[in-house]
Amino acid sequence: MASRTSSPLLHPDEQDMDLFAVMAALSDRVRLGIVATLGAQSEVACGGFNLPVGKSTSSRHFRVLREAGLIRQRDEGTRRINSLRREELDRRFPGLLALVLREVSATGSPT
Amino acid sequence: MASRTSSPLLHPDEQDMDLFAVMAALSDRVRLGIVATLGAQSEVACGGFNLPVGKSTSSRHFRVLREAGLIRQRDEGTRRINSLRREELDRRFPGLLALVLREVSATGSPT
Repeated sequence: MASRTSSPLLHPDEQDMDLFAVMAALSDRVRLGIVATLGAQSEVACGGFNLPVGKSTSSRHFRVLREAGLIRQRDEGTRRINSLRREELDRRFPGLLALVLREVSATGSPT
Repeated sequence: MASRTSSPLLHPDEQDMDLFAVMAALSDRVRLGIVATLGAQSEVACGGFNLPVGKSTSSRHFRVLREAGLIRQRDEGTRRINSLRREELDRRFPGLLALVLREVSATGSPT
């Protein structure tokens, strides 16, 4: 993953997170799988997800999650590291992430 | 609205509601407007929403909401009446509907 483009990694501020952008981001099985993995492990490089899609599709999924405010991305050498913005999400949309992670674990990992 | 087709009005059972179908249904501004209206009024006929879309698009939005389990529809004469499946949603996905309705009221009605 960690594409070496020069575009900066933009993250919305907590107060600018939009519930409907968050829900739209979560209404895709691949992205939900990413969130579920990050719910279980605090930091995972893009290459560590073993996603069932190609590299450019995978990049797009990470971008959608980042732009919705669900994940934080940072580059470390040649790797792009992802983490869930758990505390900010919990403050901004209390209960949502817990509901999502519980539901994913109850219905099985979607990926 | 109340289309006079013979297809039955199917509603998922509470235990079959899928969080991701619910979130996908809510990630559309028109459908969110319908849910917000039904959050404020218990029963509204399809024709009573004053939606910014044509009749067939409007029918599709109601169907998506019904099939996700968000609303219940019943025919009464020539009208199709809609209501929110509030109690079932609250049991199945605690806190979700409250979060959605609070967010819509905080950011203004989307329609």
